[in-house]
Amino acid sequence: MNTLDELTSNFSRLPGIGRKSASRIVNWLLRQDRLYLQKFAQNLAVLQDKVKPCPICGAWTEEEYCLICSNNLRDRSLLCVVEEAQDVSTIEAYGDFKGLYHVLGGVLKPLEGIGPAQLSINQLVNRLKQGEIREVIIATNPTVEGDTTALYLNKVISESGLAQPVKVTRLATGMPVGGDLEYVDKRTLALSFSGRAEF
Amino acid sequence: MNTLDELTSNFSRLPGIGRKSASRIVNWLLRQDRLYLQKFAQNLAVLQDKVKPCPICGAWTEEEYCLICSNNLRDRSLLCVVEEAQDVSTIEAYGDFKGLYHVLGGVLKPLEGIGPAQLSINQLVNRLKQGEIREVIIATNPTVEGDTTALYLNKVISESGLAQPVKVTRLATGMPVGGDLEYVDKRTLALSFSGRAEF
Repeated sequence: MNTLDELTSNFSRLPGIGRKSASRIVNWLLRQDRLYLQKFAQNLAVLQDKVKPCPICGAWTEEEYCLICSNNLRDRSLLCVVEEAQDVSTIEAYGDFKGLYHVLGGVLKPLEGIGPAQLSINQLVNRLKQGEIREVIIATNPTVEGDTTALYLNKVISESGLAQPVKVTRLATGMPVGGDLEYVDKRTLALSFSGRAEF
Repeated sequence: MNTLDELTSNFSRLPGIGRKSASRIVNWLLRQDRLYLQKFAQNLAVLQDKVKPCPICGAWTEEEYCLICSNNLRDRSLLCVVEEAQDVSTIEAYGDFKGLYHVLGGVLKPLEGIGPAQLSINQLVNRLKQGEIREVIIATNPTVEGDTTALYLNKVISESGLAQPVKVTRLATGMPVGGDLEYVDKRTLALSFSGRAEF
Protein backbone atom coordinates (compact mmCIF):
# COMPACT_ATOMS: atom_id res chain seq x y z
CA MET A 1 0.00 0.00 0.00
CA ASN A 2 1.34 3.46 -0.80
CA THR A 3 1.77 6.38 1.62
CA LEU A 4 -1.30 8.25 0.35
CA ASP A 5 -3.63 5.28 0.90
CA GLU A 6 -1.98 4.30 4.18
CA LEU A 7 -2.27 7.80 5.64
CA THR A 8 -5.89 8.01 4.47
CA SER A 9 -6.64 4.78 6.31
CA ASN A 10 -4.75 6.04 9.41
CA PHE A 11 -7.04 9.09 9.44
CA SER A 12 -10.20 7.11 8.76
CA ARG A 13 -9.58 5.04 11.92
CA LEU A 14 -9.95 8.18 14.07
CA PRO A 15 -13.29 8.59 15.87
CA GLY A 16 -15.76 10.67 13.86
CA ILE A 17 -13.75 10.58 10.61
CA GLY A 18 -14.96 8.51 7.68
CA ARG A 19 -13.23 7.47 4.47
CA LYS A 20 -14.26 10.58 2.52
CA SER A 21 -13.22 13.06 5.23
CA ALA A 22 -9.91 11.20 5.59
CA SER A 23 -9.23 11.51 1.88
CA ARG A 24 -10.15 15.20 1.95
CA ILE A 25 -7.80 15.77 4.90
CA VAL A 26 -4.86 14.01 3.22
CA ASN A 27 -5.37 16.00 0.02
CA TRP A 28 -5.47 19.18 2.07
CA LEU A 29 -2.30 18.20 3.97
CA LEU A 30 -0.43 17.79 0.67
CA ARG A 31 -0.86 21.52 0.07
CA GLN A 32 0.15 22.74 3.56
CA ASP A 33 3.56 23.98 4.65
CA ARG A 34 6.16 21.32 5.49
CA LEU A 35 6.86 22.67 8.96
CA TYR A 36 3.27 22.09 10.10
CA LEU A 37 3.35 18.48 8.87
CA GLN A 38 6.74 17.79 10.46
CA LYS A 39 5.66 19.22 13.81
CA PHE A 40 2.33 17.36 13.60
CA ALA A 41 4.12 14.05 12.86
CA GLN A 42 6.57 14.63 15.70
CA ASN A 43 3.84 15.40 18.24
CA LEU A 44 2.02 12.26 17.17
CA ALA A 45 5.17 10.14 17.50
CA VAL A 46 6.03 11.32 21.03
CA LEU A 47 2.45 11.63 22.37
CA GLN A 48 2.32 8.35 24.27
CA ASP A 49 5.85 8.78 25.67
CA LYS A 50 5.26 12.30 26.94
CA VAL A 51 1.67 12.15 28.14
CA LYS A 52 0.90 9.77 31.03
CA PRO A 53 -1.94 9.48 33.53
CA CYS A 54 -1.28 11.36 36.79
CA PRO A 55 -0.56 8.69 39.47
CA ILE A 56 -2.89 10.47 41.92
CA CYS A 57 -5.99 11.41 39.92
CA GLY A 58 -5.58 9.71 36.53
CA ALA A 59 -5.81 12.91 34.41
CA TRP A 60 -3.32 13.21 31.53
CA THR A 61 -0.09 14.99 32.39
CA GLU A 62 3.41 15.55 31.04
CA GLU A 63 4.88 16.14 34.51
CA GLU A 64 5.27 13.66 37.36
CA TYR A 65 1.96 14.82 38.86
CA CYS A 66 -0.73 16.77 37.01
CA LEU A 67 -0.98 20.56 37.34
CA ILE A 68 -4.15 20.25 39.42
CA CYS A 69 -2.91 17.69 41.97
CA SER A 70 0.34 19.63 42.39
CA ASN A 71 -1.40 23.01 42.78
CA ASN A 72 -1.52 23.96 46.48
CA LEU A 73 -4.19 26.59 45.90
CA ARG A 74 -6.83 23.98 44.97
CA ASP A 75 -9.44 23.06 47.58
CA ARG A 76 -8.27 19.65 48.85
CA SER A 77 -11.53 18.95 50.68
CA LEU A 78 -13.53 18.71 47.43
CA LEU A 79 -13.19 15.80 45.00
CA CYS A 80 -14.93 15.59 41.62
CA VAL A 81 -15.20 12.04 40.17
CA VAL A 82 -15.35 11.88 36.36
CA GLU A 83 -15.48 9.07 33.81
CA GLU A 84 -12.64 10.00 31.47
CA ALA A 85 -9.50 12.16 31.53
CA GLN A 86 -10.94 14.58 28.95
CA ASP A 87 -13.85 15.35 31.32
CA VAL A 88 -11.26 17.10 33.51
CA SER A 89 -10.43 19.52 30.67
CA THR A 90 -14.13 20.13 30.07
CA ILE A 91 -14.79 21.05 33.71
CA GLU A 92 -11.55 23.07 33.92
CA ALA A 93 -12.58 25.01 30.80
CA TYR A 94 -15.75 26.13 32.60
CA GLY A 95 -13.44 27.24 35.37
CA ASP A 96 -15.57 27.52 38.51
CA PHE A 97 -14.61 24.25 40.19
CA LYS A 98 -11.60 24.68 42.49
CA GLY A 99 -11.31 21.20 44.03
CA LEU A 100 -9.44 18.08 42.90
CA TYR A 101 -10.39 15.34 40.44
CA HIS A 102 -10.52 11.58 40.27
CA VAL A 103 -10.70 9.85 36.88
CA LEU A 104 -12.51 6.50 36.99
CA GLY A 105 -11.33 5.39 33.57
CA GLY A 106 -14.85 4.52 32.39
CA VAL A 107 -18.18 3.40 33.82
CA LEU A 108 -19.52 0.03 34.91
CA LYS A 109 -20.54 -2.02 31.86
CA PRO A 110 -20.99 -5.61 33.07
CA LEU A 111 -21.92 -6.84 29.57
CA GLU A 112 -18.61 -5.57 28.18
CA GLY A 113 -16.66 -7.00 31.12
CA ILE A 114 -16.05 -3.64 32.80
CA GLY A 115 -16.63 -4.21 36.51
CA PRO A 116 -15.41 -2.34 39.63
CA ALA A 117 -11.92 -3.89 39.28
CA GLN A 118 -11.45 -2.27 35.85
CA LEU A 119 -12.15 1.22 37.24
CA SER A 120 -9.99 3.13 39.74
CA ILE A 121 -12.48 2.65 42.59
CA ASN A 122 -9.98 1.22 45.11
CA GLN A 123 -7.71 4.20 44.49
CA LEU A 124 -10.70 6.49 45.12
CA VAL A 125 -11.45 4.83 48.48
CA ASN A 126 -7.76 5.06 49.42
CA ARG A 127 -7.76 8.78 48.68
CA LEU A 128 -10.83 9.20 50.90
CA LYS A 129 -9.12 7.25 53.69
CA GLN A 130 -6.38 9.87 53.84
CA GLY A 131 -9.00 12.04 55.56
CA GLU A 132 -8.68 15.39 53.77
CA ILE A 133 -11.72 15.08 51.50
CA ARG A 134 -15.10 16.29 52.87
CA GLU A 135 -17.25 16.06 49.73
CA VAL A 136 -17.24 13.78 46.69
CA ILE A 137 -19.10 15.20 43.67
CA ILE A 138 -19.95 12.38 41.27
CA ALA A 139 -19.89 13.81 37.75
CA THR A 140 -20.38 10.67 35.66
CA ASN A 141 -22.61 11.31 32.62
CA PRO A 142 -26.41 11.22 33.17
CA THR A 143 -26.73 7.95 31.20
CA VAL A 144 -27.89 4.53 32.42
CA GLU A 145 -24.28 3.40 32.96
CA GLY A 146 -23.23 6.73 34.48
CA ASP A 147 -26.16 6.65 36.93
CA THR A 148 -25.51 3.02 37.88
CA THR A 149 -21.84 3.79 38.48
CA ALA A 150 -22.79 6.81 40.61
CA LEU A 151 -25.12 4.70 42.77
CA TYR A 152 -22.45 2.02 43.11
CA LEU A 153 -19.81 4.58 44.14
CA ASN A 154 -22.17 6.04 46.75
CA LYS A 155 -22.68 2.55 48.20
CA VAL A 156 -18.95 1.71 48.21
CA ILE A 157 -18.05 5.02 49.89
CA SER A 158 -20.74 4.72 52.60
CA GLU A 159 -19.66 1.14 53.35
CA SER A 160 -15.91 1.81 53.38
CA GLY A 161 -15.83 2.71 57.10
CA LEU A 162 -14.19 6.11 56.76
CA ALA A 163 -13.02 7.79 59.95
CA GLN A 164 -14.44 11.20 58.93
CA PRO A 165 -17.90 11.91 57.43
CA VAL A 166 -17.83 12.40 53.62
CA LYS A 167 -20.76 13.96 51.79
CA VAL A 168 -21.46 12.30 48.43
CA THR A 169 -23.28 14.45 45.83
CA ARG A 170 -24.27 14.10 42.19
CA LEU A 171 -24.34 16.80 39.48
CA ALA A 172 -27.90 18.11 38.91
CA THR A 173 -29.86 16.59 36.03
CA GLY A 174 -32.59 18.64 34.37
CA MET A 175 -33.43 20.79 31.40
CA PRO A 176 -30.41 22.45 29.79
CA VAL A 177 -30.40 26.27 29.67
CA GLY A 178 -32.14 27.41 26.49
CA GLY A 179 -34.01 24.09 26.29
CA ASP A 180 -37.67 23.75 25.37
CA LEU A 181 -40.30 21.73 27.32
CA GLU A 182 -41.69 20.53 24.01
CA TYR A 183 -38.46 18.87 22.90
CA VAL A 184 -37.09 17.57 26.18
CA ASP A 185 -37.13 13.79 26.65
CA LYS A 186 -39.38 12.15 29.26
CA ARG A 187 -36.60 11.05 31.60
CA THR A 188 -35.00 14.50 31.71
CA LEU A 189 -38.41 16.03 32.36
CA ALA A 190 -39.08 13.54 35.18
CA LEU A 191 -35.71 14.38 36.76
CA SER A 192 -36.39 18.10 36.38
CA PHE A 193 -39.59 17.61 38.37
CA SER A 194 -38.12 15.42 41.09
CA GLY A 195 -35.08 17.70 41.41
CA ARG A 196 -37.12 20.94 41.46
CA ALA A 197 -35.84 23.70 43.75
CA GLU A 198 -37.58 26.44 45.76
CA PHE A 199 -37.06 30.07 44.75
CA MET B 1 2.83 24.67 24.94
CA ASN B 2 2.79 20.98 25.84
CA THR B 3 2.46 18.02 23.45
CA LEU B 4 -1.18 17.35 24.32
CA ASP B 5 -2.28 20.92 23.54
CA GLU B 6 -0.03 21.19 20.51
CA LEU B 7 -1.31 17.96 18.97
CA THR B 8 -4.89 19.04 19.69
CA SER B 9 -4.27 22.28 17.85
CA ASN B 10 -2.58 20.37 14.98
CA PHE B 11 -5.74 18.30 14.61
CA SER B 12 -8.10 21.25 14.95
CA ARG B 13 -6.43 22.92 11.93
CA LEU B 14 -7.59 20.04 9.70
CA PRO B 15 -10.62 20.75 7.51
CA GLY B 16 -13.88 19.66 9.15
CA ILE B 17 -12.37 19.15 12.62
CA GLY B 18 -13.14 21.59 15.41
CA ARG B 19 -11.57 22.04 18.83
CA LYS B 20 -13.82 19.50 20.57
CA SER B 21 -13.35 16.75 17.97
CA ALA B 22 -9.60 17.36 18.04
CA SER B 23 -9.53 16.95 21.81
CA ARG B 24 -11.63 13.78 21.56
CA ILE B 25 -9.27 12.37 18.90
CA VAL B 26 -6.12 13.07 20.95
CA ASN B 27 -7.66 11.45 24.04
CA TRP B 28 -8.60 8.46 21.93
CA LEU B 29 -5.08 8.24 20.45
CA LEU B 30 -3.59 8.08 23.96
CA ARG B 31 -5.35 4.74 24.42
CA GLN B 32 -4.40 3.15 21.05
CA ASP B 33 -1.52 0.79 20.36
CA ARG B 34 1.91 2.38 19.88
CA LEU B 35 2.54 0.81 16.48
CA TYR B 36 -0.48 2.54 14.93
CA LEU B 37 0.67 5.93 16.24
CA GLN B 38 4.26 5.40 15.08
CA LYS B 39 3.17 4.35 11.59
CA PHE B 40 0.67 7.24 11.44
CA ALA B 41 3.38 9.75 12.44
CA GLN B 42 5.81 8.31 9.93
CA ASN B 43 3.31 8.46 7.04
CA LEU B 44 2.55 12.06 7.97
CA ALA B 45 6.25 12.95 8.05
CA VAL B 46 7.07 11.49 4.63
CA LEU B 47 3.80 12.40 2.87
CA GLN B 48 5.03 15.50 1.05
CA ASP B 49 8.33 13.87 0.06
CA LYS B 50 6.74 10.76 -1.38
CA VAL B 51 3.59 12.12 -2.97
CA LYS B 52 4.05 14.63 -5.82
CA PRO B 53 1.80 15.89 -8.62
CA CYS B 54 2.20 13.90 -11.86
CA PRO B 55 4.11 16.17 -14.31
CA ILE B 56 1.63 15.31 -17.09
CA CYS B 57 -1.83 15.48 -15.51
CA GLY B 58 -1.30 16.92 -12.02
CA ALA B 59 -2.85 13.99 -10.09
CA TRP B 60 -1.00 12.85 -6.95
CA THR B 61 1.52 10.06 -7.51
CA GLU B 62 4.40 8.32 -5.77
CA GLU B 63 6.01 7.29 -9.07
CA GLU B 64 7.60 9.48 -11.76
CA TYR B 65 4.30 9.55 -13.67
CA CYS B 66 0.88 8.64 -12.26
CA LEU B 67 -0.59 5.17 -12.81
CA ILE B 68 -3.18 6.56 -15.22
CA CYS B 69 -0.83 8.55 -17.47
CA SER B 70 1.58 5.62 -17.61
CA ASN B 71 -1.15 3.04 -18.37
CA ASN B 72 -1.12 2.19 -22.08
CA LEU B 73 -4.57 0.64 -21.95
CA ARG B 74 -6.27 3.99 -21.21
CA ASP B 75 -8.07 5.78 -24.06
CA ARG B 76 -5.66 8.59 -25.03
CA SER B 77 -8.24 10.37 -27.17
CA LEU B 78 -10.41 11.26 -24.15
CA LEU B 79 -9.40 13.86 -21.55
CA CYS B 80 -11.36 14.64 -18.39
CA VAL B 81 -10.60 18.06 -16.84
CA VAL B 82 -11.16 18.26 -13.06
CA GLU B 83 -10.66 20.94 -10.41
CA GLU B 84 -8.59 19.07 -7.81
CA ALA B 85 -6.41 15.96 -7.61
CA GLN B 86 -8.89 14.17 -5.33
CA ASP B 87 -11.56 14.46 -8.06
CA VAL B 88 -9.47 11.93 -10.03
CA SER B 89 -9.86 9.37 -7.21
CA THR B 90 -13.61 10.06 -7.07
CA ILE B 91 -14.07 9.43 -10.80
CA GLU B 92 -11.72 6.43 -10.72
CA ALA B 93 -13.71 4.94 -7.84
CA TYR B 94 -16.81 4.98 -10.01
CA GLY B 95 -14.69 3.15 -12.55
CA ASP B 96 -16.39 3.63 -15.95
CA PHE B 97 -14.19 6.39 -17.34
CA LYS B 98 -11.26 4.97 -19.30
CA GLY B 99 -9.61 8.14 -20.63
CA LEU B 100 -6.94 10.43 -19.16
CA TYR B 101 -7.22 13.33 -16.69
CA HIS B 102 -6.07 16.90 -16.38
CA VAL B 103 -6.08 18.56 -12.95
CA LEU B 104 -6.62 22.34 -13.12
CA GLY B 105 -5.56 22.97 -9.54
CA GLY B 106 -8.69 24.97 -8.71
CA VAL B 107 -11.24 27.18 -10.45
CA LEU B 108 -11.22 30.82 -11.54
CA LYS B 109 -11.85 33.07 -8.52
CA PRO B 110 -10.91 36.60 -9.60
CA LEU B 111 -11.79 38.06 -6.19
CA GLU B 112 -9.31 35.71 -4.50
CA GLY B 113 -6.65 36.41 -7.11
CA ILE B 114 -7.01 33.06 -8.88
CA GLY B 115 -6.89 33.82 -12.60
CA PRO B 116 -6.01 31.64 -15.62
CA ALA B 117 -2.28 31.91 -14.83
CA GLN B 118 -2.80 30.22 -11.43
CA LEU B 119 -4.45 27.17 -13.06
CA SER B 120 -2.78 24.65 -15.38
CA ILE B 121 -4.59 25.99 -18.47
CA ASN B 122 -1.47 26.47 -20.63
CA GLN B 123 -0.44 22.89 -19.88
CA LEU B 124 -3.93 21.77 -20.97
CA VAL B 125 -3.65 23.59 -24.31
CA ASN B 126 -0.16 22.12 -24.83
CA ARG B 127 -1.52 18.62 -24.28
CA LEU B 128 -4.25 19.28 -26.85
CA LYS B 129 -1.65 20.55 -29.35
CA GLN B 130 0.04 17.15 -29.29
CA GLY B 131 -2.92 16.01 -31.42
CA GLU B 132 -3.99 12.76 -29.74
CA ILE B 133 -7.01 14.08 -27.81
CA ARG B 134 -10.39 14.11 -29.61
CA GLU B 135 -12.72 15.04 -26.73
CA VAL B 136 -12.29 17.16 -23.60
CA ILE B 137 -14.87 16.45 -20.89
CA ILE B 138 -15.01 19.39 -18.48
CA ALA B 139 -15.86 18.00 -15.04
CA THR B 140 -15.53 21.11 -12.88
CA ASN B 141 -18.20 21.25 -10.16
CA PRO B 142 -21.64 22.63 -11.09
CA THR B 143 -21.08 25.81 -9.06
CA VAL B 144 -20.87 29.43 -10.22
CA GLU B 145 -17.04 29.26 -10.29
CA GLY B 146 -17.01 25.79 -11.85
CA ASP B 147 -19.40 26.86 -14.60
CA THR B 148 -17.46 30.07 -15.30
CA THR B 149 -14.22 28.08 -15.51
CA ALA B 150 -15.87 25.58 -17.88
CA LEU B 151 -17.06 28.38 -20.18
CA TYR B 152 -13.62 29.98 -20.09
CA LEU B 153 -11.88 26.68 -20.94
CA ASN B 154 -14.27 26.13 -23.86
CA LYS B 155 -13.38 29.59 -25.19
CA VAL B 156 -9.62 29.10 -24.74
CA ILE B 157 -9.70 25.69 -26.45
CA SER B 158 -11.77 26.90 -29.41
CA GLU B 159 -9.46 29.90 -29.89
CA SER B 160 -6.20 27.99 -29.54
CA GLY B 161 -5.98 27.13 -33.25
CA LEU B 162 -5.60 23.38 -32.88
CA ALA B 163 -4.69 21.42 -36.03
CA GLN B 164 -7.31 18.70 -35.32
CA PRO B 165 -10.96 19.21 -34.23
CA VAL B 166 -11.53 18.69 -30.49
CA LYS B 167 -15.02 18.21 -29.08
CA VAL B 168 -15.52 20.01 -25.72
CA THR B 169 -18.27 18.58 -23.47
CA ARG B 170 -19.52 19.24 -19.95
CA LEU B 171 -20.83 16.71 -17.40
CA ALA B 172 -24.64 16.68 -17.30
CA THR B 173 -26.32 18.76 -14.59
CA GLY B 174 -29.75 17.73 -13.35
CA MET B 175 -31.63 15.94 -10.62
CA PRO B 176 -29.57 13.35 -8.77
CA VAL B 177 -30.81 9.74 -8.86
CA GLY B 178 -33.21 9.23 -5.94
CA GLY B 179 -33.89 12.97 -5.80
CA ASP B 180 -37.33 14.51 -5.32
CA LEU B 181 -38.85 17.32 -7.43
CA GLU B 182 -40.17 18.88 -4.23
CA TYR B 183 -36.75 19.34 -2.68
CA VAL B 184 -34.60 20.15 -5.70
CA ASP B 185 -33.36 23.75 -5.98
CA LYS B 186 -34.60 26.06 -8.75
CA ARG B 187 -31.35 26.21 -10.69
CA THR B 188 -30.97 22.41 -10.80
CA LEU B 189 -34.58 22.11 -11.92
CA ALA B 190 -34.03 24.73 -14.65
CA LEU B 191 -30.95 22.83 -15.87
CA SER B 192 -32.88 19.53 -15.76
CA PHE B 193 -35.46 21.09 -18.08
CA SER B 194 -33.00 22.69 -20.49
CA GLY B 195 -30.88 19.53 -20.61
CA ARG B 196 -33.88 17.15 -21.04
CA ALA B 197 -33.27 14.16 -23.31
CA GLU B 198 -35.56 12.16 -25.67
CA PHE B 199 -36.37 8.57 -24.80
